[in-house]
Amino acid sequence: MNSEKIEIFDTTLRDGEQVPGCKLNTKQKLIIAERLDKLGIDVIEAGFPISSPGDFESVSEISKLVKNAKVCGLTRANKKDIDVAADALRYAKRPRIHTGIGTSDSHIQYKFNSTREDILERAADAVKYAKSYVEDVEFYAEDAGRTDNAFLARVCEEVIKAGATVLNIPDTTGYCLPEEYGEKIKYLKENVKGIEKAIISCHCHNDLGLATANSIAGAINGARQIECTINGLGERAGNTALEEVVMILKQHKDLNLHTDINSRMLNEMSLMVSDLMGMPVQPNKAIVGANAFAHSSGIHQDGVIKNRETYEIIDPEEVGVNASSIILTARSGRSALAYRFKHIGYDITKNELDFLYQEFLKVADQKKEVKNNDLYMIMETCSRKIG
Amino acid sequence: MNSEKIEIFDTTLRDGEQVPGCKLNTKQKLIIAERLDKLGIDVIEAGFPISSPGDFESVSEISKLVKNAKVCGLTRANKKDIDVAADALRYAKRPRIHTGIGTSDSHIQYKFNSTREDILERAADAVKYAKSYVEDVEFYAEDAGRTDNAFLARVCEEVIKAGATVLNIPDTTGYCLPEEYGEKIKYLKENVKGIEKAIISCHCHNDLGLATANSIAGAINGARQIECTINGLGERAGNTALEEVVMILKQHKDLNLHTDINSRMLNEMSLMVSDLMGMPVQPNKAIVGANAFAHSSGIHQDGVIKNRETYEIIDPEEVGVNASSIILTARSGRSALAYRFKHIGYDITKNELDFLYQEFLKVADQKKEVKNNDLYMIMETCSRKIG
Repeated sequence: MNSEKIEIFDTTLRDGEQVPGCKLNTKQKLIIAERLDKLGIDVIEAGFPISSPGDFESVSEISKLVKNAKVCGLTRANKKDIDVAADALRYAKRPRIHTGIGTSDSHIQYKFNSTREDILERAADAVKYAKSYVEDVEFYAEDAGRTDNAFLARVCEEVIKAGATVLNIPDTTGYCLPEEYGEKIKYLKENVKGIEKAIISCHCHNDLGLATANSIAGAINGARQIECTINGLGERAGNTALEEVVMILKQHKDLNLHTDINSRMLNEMSLMVSDLMGMPVQPNKAIVGANAFAHSSGIHQDGVIKNRETYEIIDPEEVGVNASSIILTARSGRSALAYRFKHIGYDITKNELDFLYQEFLKVADQKKEVKNNDLYMIMETCSRKIG
Repeated sequence: MNSEKIEIFDTTLRDGEQVPGCKLNTKQKLIIAERLDKLGIDVIEAGFPISSPGDFESVSEISKLVKNAKVCGLTRANKKDIDVAADALRYAKRPRIHTGIGTSDSHIQYKFNSTREDILERAADAVKYAKSYVEDVEFYAEDAGRTDNAFLARVCEEVIKAGATVLNIPDTTGYCLPEEYGEKIKYLKENVKGIEKAIISCHCHNDLGLATANSIAGAINGARQIECTINGLGERAGNTALEEVVMILKQHKDLNLHTDINSRMLNEMSLMVSDLMGMPVQPNKAIVGANAFAHSSGIHQDGVIKNRETYEIIDPEEVGVNASSIILTARSGRSALAYRFKHIGYDITKNELDFLYQEFLKVADQKKEVKNNDLYMIMETCSRKIG
């Protein structure tokens, strides 16, 4: 079976930037957009043009800059938003307008004080109006995660009739479980008339720590676009992490799904976005955390040294990290110690190692990490004792 | 249907501490253990007693201190490890020895240079030996995630016969997809003779960002213990995050599963562990990140102000956070601005708001976050213009 492509829709510059303290200026956004284009992103969501003059300018400048990716601007379901977005996107080679409206009962009632019929009409009208400007129109059904499936299917049918090319099914509150989100996508694939004319997109939030799992469940059940951000940035607990989705599809070839992302740029992208946005990545972040490929416990280190594949499933070079590092702490075993001694030029016998290891444990119980200069000290102490 | 209990096995002090730079001294470990006991943890894995004198001391002191939780010590499948663990646990009210061995072909071949039959025998022998010291013996089948299910079932049968009370099925490399891990647990529930005599435990790693989803899939398919750490700490990309698992089960009551964790202590626990281990939690970390309950975009803020439930599914107080904060950036809308002005004492009319909002956007385009002193400035500027 041929592998099918999952389009990667990056919203680092829109949903990712919607984070307290993360605002970027236009110049910074252009730097990121240029790298995203090189990374192989299919769609770059560049901003929400009507939200502020700065956002408008960024979308407009990114539209001029980007060579390969589609450039997308967000709108609400009204003409003014769409007019402004179309204006901001007018220089884009491949423009996309992303419009939509809340479809869950909670949103219809509290946010819009409206009815289902009215929402259906507003959704279709917005898509039709966006189509008067561009061919490629993505529709988002906000809070789709909590929207009744039958009504969601009706919304999808109406917006496909109106010309939508992509249906974005966001789990806005990050509430869904993977099985539930997967079933929702499956339901739409099986019940929406005309579904073959559009692709389904997953847009998941990480409030319960399930954004990545939900997106993958969506793709397994027929979605062909995943919306994500570098480092999983985004409001609250953030969005789906781009690097996780890309590496899951790369590692699990049996899913027969792939992306066109150049994974060797992932580490560099993560560092750049973290620096420019001033948002730290925790050391234990999957794929791009500083510790993602570091081993310190004795049992694991021994396994890694015997055969890297024993514990690592990803070659660090595949995501742009040079080598998995062996860090020495009180949990490290003899083989890790010997490995590091060898690394700084000492080939030691088994008997010497037993002796050095005892001294090492004393030092390690005092220190968080035993570094090269400590190793030299340990070697000297032991040599003196032996001597 | 009555809700079934999921036991929470915390390994912050063992697998969590196996992180470069995270070593704790005994005093720090005792502080954490005391709070874990208060939090309602069922099993505290206190350390790996044979690994260093410091670890032995910690397990021994924690055993004396802890009142309610079971206290557990890790061993490899050999007599010396088990002797030392039993010694470290001798003061525990409810001691558990956690022993085990690698069961995947990769581990059997590269790590042990052994055979399946030999591994079966060593596994059963270790459990029998541990049983000579304590009643409660947990067995881990290291790299179970990549172990052939039929062989894994044989291992489980043998160790249950030898007296194991808990079967730990670790996805050591963090490679499994949720569906796959769930099916593995289901297979064991359905195929292991004597499975009713033991409970199955999920121990997942987060290398692909799926540890939480895998653990929940395990519980849905019959596991009744989840092994996790505060903040998802642990080697490489870490372990399953305790706070995520607890809140998923709390929010998804339809799963009919619950824990005995006092969720109102989660935020405090997260801060304490992060401080003591020197491991930062990223702002967009689910449940315990600094931004987990912060809203900055206009659309969302408006929704939250109209009805908190529109966007938040967890009441921040449930995890010990006082209130969801409304942060002002260039993405904020009028209602957020009015909310914050009201908060500092200004009740403003719609017309005044339009005027203030234009001024606000100018300031916001220059700044990452608009704070109270900026609001006073904006108010003053506008008053002068009007005046």
